[in-house]
Amino acid sequence: MAVPDTGPERPRTNPIRPTDDEARRLARSLIDEARFAALAVLAEGRPVVTRIALGTTPRGAPLTLVSDLAAHTVALRADPKASLLVGEPGPRGDPLTHPRLTLEATARFLRKDPALRAHYLATHPKSKLYVDFADFHFVTFDVVAAHLNGGFGKAFRLTPADLGLG
Amino acid sequence: MAVPDTGPERPRTNPIRPTDDEARRLARSLIDEARFAALAVLAEGRPVVTRIALGTTPRGAPLTLVSDLAAHTVALRADPKASLLVGEPGPRGDPLTHPRLTLEATARFLRKDPALRAHYLATHPKSKLYVDFADFHFVTFDVVAAHLNGGFGKAFRLTPADLGLG
Repeated sequence: MAVPDTGPERPRTNPIRPTDDEARRLARSLIDEARFAALAVLAEGRPVVTRIALGTTPRGAPLTLVSDLAAHTVALRADPKASLLVGEPGPRGDPLTHPRLTLEATARFLRKDPALRAHYLATHPKSKLYVDFADFHFVTFDVVAAHLNGGFGKAFRLTPADLGLG
Repeated sequence: MAVPDTGPERPRTNPIRPTDDEARRLARSLIDEARFAALAVLAEGRPVVTRIALGTTPRGAPLTLVSDLAAHTVALRADPKASLLVGEPGPRGDPLTHPRLTLEATARFLRKDPALRAHYLATHPKSKLYVDFADFHFVTFDVVAAHLNGGFGKAFRLTPADLGLG
């Protein structure tokens, strides 16, 4: 027996708040503190989401280290459109009140520059075990747009410049 | 000064292991224990990943409760192709050794059936505050394929039947 969807109607106001410095700082900290992220790619026209390690380039852009053996790497070589989710809920409390940041981005494969390698290994020391394997590559993400959700009713749309990536 | 990608070459063997009952049980438990998930959708041809609450239908299919005010809901109404990532790393240890499950799926909007509502609220009691708002809808995910990563080198490809959803 279906219940009609006739609960209270709510006003369809724009849920996006004006961007302020607090939102910019929170978004930036979610990138800087992330050690991993959910990565969405396109595979034969379907979205596919997996977990990747995440660090930053020396200028603060999101950076990962991926293997050619991984399906997401194959997908990004075929189509660099990508999205990242950072901001992990703790073990307690409502996960949907925990701040998180969605990035829309374009993936770009980088060479293993020594400065890049050192910067990444500083936050991901265990990656030393496989960073030099030939099938592992650094990939950075050129951010196109960002969506910050600071908890219920606290949504912001941010630009790359808001994240210091202008 | 770029370092050539000339580290040790590794054999390009198929990294997918044969599916066994342990893999099936682990995948099923990752769905049953999830209270939230990363959801990837398509928005104007780009992948976009956000966080959603996640429960199950009485028969064990992934189930969420989303608002029409959320961009992912708008995206799923336009194109139901979706992917879910479940299996959250704890606060300690290497997040990439923590088991996780990627589902490729098709989203389907459901009516607010009382049995469905009760089953969802049993695992998401705080949702009682907004479940009856007219802009909130239950969405289930018809699983097309599943990819289990039980940690480095432990990858499995699972069917809906392997998850009890055949």
